[in-house]
Amino acid sequence: MRNEIQQLLEGVSQGKVSVEEALLTLKTKPFEDIGYAKVDMHRRIRQGTAEVIYGAGKTPEQMIGIIDVMKENGQDRILITRLSGEAAQEIQKSHPLHYYEEAGVGILGNLPEPDGIGTIVVATGGTSDIPVAEEAALTAQILGNQVIRLYDVGVAGLHRTLAHLDEIMSASVIIAIAGMEGALASVIGGLADCPVIAVPTSVGYGASFHGLSALLSMLNSCASGVSVVNIDNGFGAGYLANMINHMRQG
Amino acid sequence: MRNEIQQLLEGVSQGKVSVEEALLTLKTKPFEDIGYAKVDMHRRIRQGTAEVIYGAGKTPEQMIGIIDVMKENGQDRILITRLSGEAAQEIQKSHPLHYYEEAGVGILGNLPEPDGIGTIVVATGGTSDIPVAEEAALTAQILGNQVIRLYDVGVAGLHRTLAHLDEIMSASVIIAIAGMEGALASVIGGLADCPVIAVPTSVGYGASFHGLSALLSMLNSCASGVSVVNIDNGFGAGYLANMINHMRQG
Amino acid sequence: MRNEIQQLLEGVSQGKVSVEEALLTLKTKPFEDIGYAKVDMHRRIRQGTAEVIYGAGKTPEQMIGIIDVMKENGQDRILITRLSGEAAQEIQKSHPLHYYEEAGVGILGNLPEPDGIGTIVVATGGTSDIPVAEEAALTAQILGNQVIRLYDVGVAGLHRTLAHLDEIMSASVIIAIAGMEGALASVIGGLADCPVIAVPTSVGYGASFHGLSALLSMLNSCASGVSVVNIDNGFGAGYLANMINHMRQG
Amino acid sequence: MRNEIQQLLEGVSQGKVSVEEALLTLKTKPFEDIGYAKVDMHRRIRQGTAEVIYGAGKTPEQMIGIIDVMKENGQDRILITRLSGEAAQEIQKSHPLHYYEEAGVGILGNLPEPDGIGTIVVATGGTSDIPVAEEAALTAQILGNQVIRLYDVGVAGLHRTLAHLDEIMSASVIIAIAGMEGALASVIGGLADCPVIAVPTSVGYGASFHGLSALLSMLNSCASGVSVVNIDNGFGAGYLANMINHMRQG
Amino acid sequence: MRNEIQQLLEGVSQGKVSVEEALLTLKTKPFEDIGYAKVDMHRRIRQGTAEVIYGAGKTPEQMIGIIDVMKENGQDRILITRLSGEAAQEIQKSHPLHYYEEAGVGILGNLPEPDGIGTIVVATGGTSDIPVAEEAALTAQILGNQVIRLYDVGVAGLHRTLAHLDEIMSASVIIAIAGMEGALASVIGGLADCPVIAVPTSVGYGASFHGLSALLSMLNSCASGVSVVNIDNGFGAGYLANMINHMRQG
Amino acid sequence: MRNEIQQLLEGVSQGKVSVEEALLTLKTKPFEDIGYAKVDMHRRIRQGTAEVIYGAGKTPEQMIGIIDVMKENGQDRILITRLSGEAAQEIQKSHPLHYYEEAGVGILGNLPEPDGIGTIVVATGGTSDIPVAEEAALTAQILGNQVIRLYDVGVAGLHRTLAHLDEIMSASVIIAIAGMEGALASVIGGLADCPVIAVPTSVGYGASFHGLSALLSMLNSCASGVSVVNIDNGFGAGYLANMINHMRQG
Amino acid sequence: MRNEIQQLLEGVSQGKVSVEEALLTLKTKPFEDIGYAKVDMHRRIRQGTAEVIYGAGKTPEQMIGIIDVMKENGQDRILITRLSGEAAQEIQKSHPLHYYEEAGVGILGNLPEPDGIGTIVVATGGTSDIPVAEEAALTAQILGNQVIRLYDVGVAGLHRTLAHLDEIMSASVIIAIAGMEGALASVIGGLADCPVIAVPTSVGYGASFHGLSALLSMLNSCASGVSVVNIDNGFGAGYLANMINHMRQG
Amino acid sequence: MRNEIQQLLEGVSQGKVSVEEALLTLKTKPFEDIGYAKVDMHRRIRQGTAEVIYGAGKTPEQMIGIIDVMKENGQDRILITRLSGEAAQEIQKSHPLHYYEEAGVGILGNLPEPDGIGTIVVATGGTSDIPVAEEAALTAQILGNQVIRLYDVGVAGLHRTLAHLDEIMSASVIIAIAGMEGALASVIGGLADCPVIAVPTSVGYGASFHGLSALLSMLNSCASGVSVVNIDNGFGAGYLANMINHMRQG
Repeated sequence: MRNEIQQLLEGVSQGKVSVEEALLTLKTKPFEDIGYAKVDMHRRIRQGTAEVIYGAGKTPEQMIGIIDVMKENGQDRILITRLSGEAAQEIQKSHPLHYYEEAGVGILGNLPEPDGIGTIVVATGGTSDIPVAEEAALTAQILGNQVIRLYDVGVAGLHRTLAHLDEIMSASVIIAIAGMEGALASVIGGLADCPVIAVPTSVGYGASFHGLSALLSMLNSCASGVSVVNIDNGFGAGYLANMINHMRQG
Repeated sequence: MRNEIQQLLEGVSQGKVSVEEALLTLKTKPFEDIGYAKVDMHRRIRQGTAEVIYGAGKTPEQMIGIIDVMKENGQDRILITRLSGEAAQEIQKSHPLHYYEEAGVGILGNLPEPDGIGTIVVATGGTSDIPVAEEAALTAQILGNQVIRLYDVGVAGLHRTLAHLDEIMSASVIIAIAGMEGALASVIGGLADCPVIAVPTSVGYGASFHGLSALLSMLNSCASGVSVVNIDNGFGAGYLANMINHMRQG
Repeated sequence: MRNEIQQLLEGVSQGKVSVEEALLTLKTKPFEDIGYAKVDMHRRIRQGTAEVIYGAGKTPEQMIGIIDVMKENGQDRILITRLSGEAAQEIQKSHPLHYYEEAGVGILGNLPEPDGIGTIVVATGGTSDIPVAEEAALTAQILGNQVIRLYDVGVAGLHRTLAHLDEIMSASVIIAIAGMEGALASVIGGLADCPVIAVPTSVGYGASFHGLSALLSMLNSCASGVSVVNIDNGFGAGYLANMINHMRQG
Repeated sequence: MRNEIQQLLEGVSQGKVSVEEALLTLKTKPFEDIGYAKVDMHRRIRQGTAEVIYGAGKTPEQMIGIIDVMKENGQDRILITRLSGEAAQEIQKSHPLHYYEEAGVGILGNLPEPDGIGTIVVATGGTSDIPVAEEAALTAQILGNQVIRLYDVGVAGLHRTLAHLDEIMSASVIIAIAGMEGALASVIGGLADCPVIAVPTSVGYGASFHGLSALLSMLNSCASGVSVVNIDNGFGAGYLANMINHMRQG
Repeated sequence: MRNEIQQLLEGVSQGKVSVEEALLTLKTKPFEDIGYAKVDMHRRIRQGTAEVIYGAGKTPEQMIGIIDVMKENGQDRILITRLSGEAAQEIQKSHPLHYYEEAGVGILGNLPEPDGIGTIVVATGGTSDIPVAEEAALTAQILGNQVIRLYDVGVAGLHRTLAHLDEIMSASVIIAIAGMEGALASVIGGLADCPVIAVPTSVGYGASFHGLSALLSMLNSCASGVSVVNIDNGFGAGYLANMINHMRQG
Repeated sequence: MRNEIQQLLEGVSQGKVSVEEALLTLKTKPFEDIGYAKVDMHRRIRQGTAEVIYGAGKTPEQMIGIIDVMKENGQDRILITRLSGEAAQEIQKSHPLHYYEEAGVGILGNLPEPDGIGTIVVATGGTSDIPVAEEAALTAQILGNQVIRLYDVGVAGLHRTLAHLDEIMSASVIIAIAGMEGALASVIGGLADCPVIAVPTSVGYGASFHGLSALLSMLNSCASGVSVVNIDNGFGAGYLANMINHMRQG
Repeated sequence: MRNEIQQLLEGVSQGKVSVEEALLTLKTKPFEDIGYAKVDMHRRIRQGTAEVIYGAGKTPEQMIGIIDVMKENGQDRILITRLSGEAAQEIQKSHPLHYYEEAGVGILGNLPEPDGIGTIVVATGGTSDIPVAEEAALTAQILGNQVIRLYDVGVAGLHRTLAHLDEIMSASVIIAIAGMEGALASVIGGLADCPVIAVPTSVGYGASFHGLSALLSMLNSCASGVSVVNIDNGFGAGYLANMINHMRQG
Repeated sequence: MRNEIQQLLEGVSQGKVSVEEALLTLKTKPFEDIGYAKVDMHRRIRQGTAEVIYGAGKTPEQMIGIIDVMKENGQDRILITRLSGEAAQEIQKSHPLHYYEEAGVGILGNLPEPDGIGTIVVATGGTSDIPVAEEAALTAQILGNQVIRLYDVGVAGLHRTLAHLDEIMSASVIIAIAGMEGALASVIGGLADCPVIAVPTSVGYGASFHGLSALLSMLNSCASGVSVVNIDNGFGAGYLANMINHMRQG
């Protein structure tokens, strides 16, 4: 497998294979089958920095299997999301995993130094939104971004939001995370000039309906530049924020 | 009918009837039946200033009938909500009705001078919310309140909201009206020290689901002191605001 | 921090700082950051009597930390809502907390004597609504209000409701709490002349859909003067009731 | 067709056919096919008094065709529900139809005198519910029931409901019709000792969601003896009320 | 308390109190307050046979307290619904309670002999609906009705339904209980000539949405004579069936 | 374009191109671009009999353009669904279109004789479901199937359904179409041994919620062999029924 | 019971009973009543290969009872779905049950050799959908079908889907199983020429709303030939796939 | 007003005002009040190219008023969204407006030449999604972006999507617009390496529930880099795409 990719890239460097052709090959072809999951060997190449495992619904054994295949293919920076403490302990028996309990995130390999391109602000409405925020922040960090955390700056205490006007105005991308009424995204969207990724959370009770209230509120934001990902999807927000932030490189 | 009430009140003044007893009588007894609607003759007494007709689904003829009965009973300040322009023209043939087109409100008798007790702020997120706001404002005005209108101060342009910090902070009651994401209620609720009545509107499209988004958002407001009325219920908000504002008199 | 506020207030008393300016400063500025939460130091001043901690999702350690900061700032009457028995026991090791099990509420410092301004009636449809009602009642009490509890007066046994007509008619604010069909708010709203705060509860089964039925019913109340807070939000209702009741002071 | 039924019944009277057998035959066998609809020839027999056509979505021509078949089979008392004024005028060209505009109901043949068995009370919360109520009332009347109409007795003005305590307590069946919060069913259900058929209506706006609010409220009624039919289904309620009321005969 | 009622009834028998007046008194007045619940002392009189306690959310101690008060007032046939096995064991320590595990129902006193008036058929679509069916059947039985159980006769195996055509056709009331698609109510409603009370159950998975599918299906039944109670509300159906069945006595 | 396909097929017949390869080419390649729509030139080949245009949201001019391209490519049997009468008249000016008003379907070219493979039964619960049924039936007919129509056989009159037991039991595929409670699919699914395609319709009112009730009911069918297509999707059902029926050929 | 069927079949073989008549008898008559469930003795005959028990909500004892009756009636290949590991262990004490843990499926008797008719492809979007897929696959296998499993071929990695174009294009029926956005059904429906049975799964979080998102997506599939079964209903899909695949035999 | 801004900017250029301070002033201060709308004078400055008017719910007169104020402030490139043909004609009487009928968009001033930074691909699933797509495309164009339109490339005909692999892989931002099942976003998200903005549309019928199906599907996309805006919100998508695309400049 690795050889195939090597050959392809050598072909490119020798002018035998065009860049376009090589990209298409990487896009439309191979992955390694280990029975319970197809491990995609190309993502790292395309993305350059790290590989991700979605831990929910996977046994520690399955995750270890995937990690082993990834490592064999030369990837040594791996992010595992939705990882329980018990599963983390199992993995730690065979791999040096750093576990971030609040985020439910495990990381193999070290967090890279920020690459100096832009700043991603991760803001939350309340303290209960922090687990989702940490998932987003760690995802952005492992992909090389500088991250500023602004937690518990919900709009019901507007002075808390305004106290961070500087960070909000100088961010390249903002991830606005809130449950309940989800107003944070609109307020930040109105203050900032950069793209705002809104993450509704399932925090709340009663008529929050497990995040539906925040989700609808964010989709209806009157502020331009706001888009929304799934409820509690911190990883998705962090990944997209990285993608947008690195447009600068494009 | 009027005599009955008069006698009751005379009885009270002569010490024959206790105040409690009289109130209970007024609470639990009479109304005049004119076939298609029971006209409640006690509301005015209890409330002192004006009578209300809910115009939706009533023909001009029915409304004129109700007006006639009300006038016979000595009430000459009448508010008609959800009144179409056509119906208003019909009524104007026999009664001197002032029609407020944007609010869909008709008023018989003049708007009273503000009675000097407190100030009710009516704020909207956008210009499309103004019809609901005018229904609320006129309701509050006909009941004798001083009303300040702050329209199009939605949180996506936060400086618009903050530009009116003085009015917000000195209000005795605030009615916050917004469609779409409904964040206005939370932001104002966080700034103000007084009760905030939130009115979701059906303004919007797509995932606003005819006001559901704003409704849920407002119910989930993290700001204390916020309560919610039905979607587009400007009258209910104005009426409740009057009730709260006149607590000062109690 | 305390000094700052002191100076500000001294400035006001000496005529150097206008009242408006001081209020604005208090509104838009400071809070103390203790890592996992921003403790708002101004609420007590604005409100005068007590401080609130929302216990859900906070560890006992975090709550103790917040209590410590509050006490350092001179606040000694603290209400903790959504507090589990276990967390209460942890806190009791270091602080003299009184725990109200049915309400899931903890109180530091004593409940004040009622200040003699008005009466707040807290009514429930059934016995299962009592936990929400107690959260509302204790909130109102710690803020100095006289509270009358009318429990299990649901409209399916209308004589139960009517047996308390006196209390209903003489209240300054009523909190109507009900699950299932939520009709209590409408019936009380029709009987009372004061503002009614409706609290839907998640009590029920089947088509109650965890409080949705009561919520919609209450939002659609035909009775004027009724507004609604989130499902099971006893605290919000108690806080707002206090705010309205103390309008009399304004 | 008619002969078949005649023979069957003669067989019964002559002891050749058991009653059970005959009923089963009538239950499980014939109907007349007129292309666009199968006209059920047995309903009248089983029910004894009248035949029903559901007018919605049928052209006047189709309805006239069905009427003709029914008349040929000896049925001369026919109720047409959901009938528009235009369609009624078309039918009136060939049949002496009495059209009840408010109910959207047409009746061929005269309304029978009440048969003296029990009383059905038809109550509505507001005036806008009257069309549904009239559909229910006329259905009950054409089937021979005594009907008492109590309109606009909604619980927000509880004295209006209580003013009719006598009728409510002496009814054999009550049809409680209401939109918005639908509390009427619970209150009447708590007062009455007889079965209460609740009919939610689509009357209302905003969070009434076209009758959903009233529907859920009625399904969650804490009062025993209450059951619910579809939103706006006046006919179904009237038909069921007749069935229950005539249990007395059984 | 008992004296009061006795006196009232003696007054009636001596012609001093009219029947109407006495009924009104019973309707609109007393209940005994035992702190956590108002025990209604009139239900038994009006209904003649048994008293009901809704067990969900009540502690064994609270239920024992209510039982004690009921017994003091001369009621010795008591039905407790939604009763867990643990709570039943607690109650059995002080009271001779018969516990029906499948139904989650406890009964004090014996089930009466059927009073010979009519027959109530309780039918279920599947075996999983039996707990709800038993709650309905036992409720009907304790109120003196003859009950026939037809379980697992769902329409997907139509021959199962048709095999019981005799019972269906000779019933005075039918309770049709089904989860999933809820079609049983329509099929039985089409076969029977008597009132059908439909009970949706929360049995099912996926798009049954905890009973919503069956609920909507039953509300939309094209069969006349069908009405619906809340999801899983076996008690309500049994109680209403008894009420309708005993119309024959009226 | 046509040449390309011709060459491809010639290649196959000459053994130069494998069948698999040719099929893949047809699957993954060409379509003709006429600006407002990509006309797929391969469908007819794969399917052999007719081409379909989804008429909703297309102007008559656009449809004529698509027809012209299709005809140029040798297709002369074309089905147009969701076609209004006005649009049909426009098309008829240039093309010999047969318009089926009730179904909202237009057909160019003649309906083929049934090919003798199996029988598709199209059954409806009521007369209002016929438009959807005709869309399904005509779709199946244009693709060469024998179709039997069983209309107005809803389960509330079960004898109507059972009267057609023969057709139901001898069908190769059944399309069960119903609004309201949608029970028809379950009853037929229980009687038949063949695949049943359930089509919920938007027929109904109130709690039918525009077909949601029938949709959920059908998805929850306890009968095996039942699957569901979108609300009102007669075309989809007819197309799938043809596909299943012609499995016999495979 | 068995005798009855035997006699019936003998009657058929001797020409005394027509095939149609016998089938009808089998359709509309008997089943064995074992108290808690009616065991349908005819299904196996009609279907020829295996019998199914829906394990959810049944105790091991009840399932053993049903197995015993089935075995007495000569059925020795039995599929139990929704079977927990604990229940499986109980059954294994008395019956040689093979338990498939991932699928939650138990099988008595051996899986038959594929009968050589067609191929059913079972495809999933992700690894978390495998339990539902295995239920579908095992159901199809026990009924004699050849099954190809394509797991984790979701459309977000389209190359994974396309890598299996051959299997997709040569299948006789495809079961497409996916949670989250459910796009797999549309993509496969567009590629394949055979019927596609879409199974939404409850896999996912947030706005997947327990399978609602995938369900709606699949119902709205623009690809022809796609129909949908209930969320997580692997058995229903496998059973229907078998029915369609064996049309070839018909 | 203009002077104020001028002075501010002069202050900046003369070093009297810091850049930060000036930005803050612009952020938090002025707008021009013309009664029915507050015209925000700063947006253009911050954004540099064009001004937007949301036309829905505004009269032509109101829009002309806003245009006049904008022009007075030196803005001559104005985009009006949700503009009806009639309103466009009214505006054209006084202003040279170019009206794009399909998009419902009006533009004053010319579309600028693309600025050469990146490429935005606007793709739709079907032809009915084009109005939303054109709103998005024109918004992106007026802000200076190069736009490639890929219409009717829905995944049910996957070859249509794959035919544009080059454009998809070389885009800097992709806007994926689809109704019905909304699968386009996932498929494109899986193919592309750039941010994908998903726009659900209200195109469809039945279980599309006015865009809800596509909305949920897109929110649940398994593809990384996908975020979602409101149903039919072409403008929002175009605006955000511009913002992301111009990150390259930042």
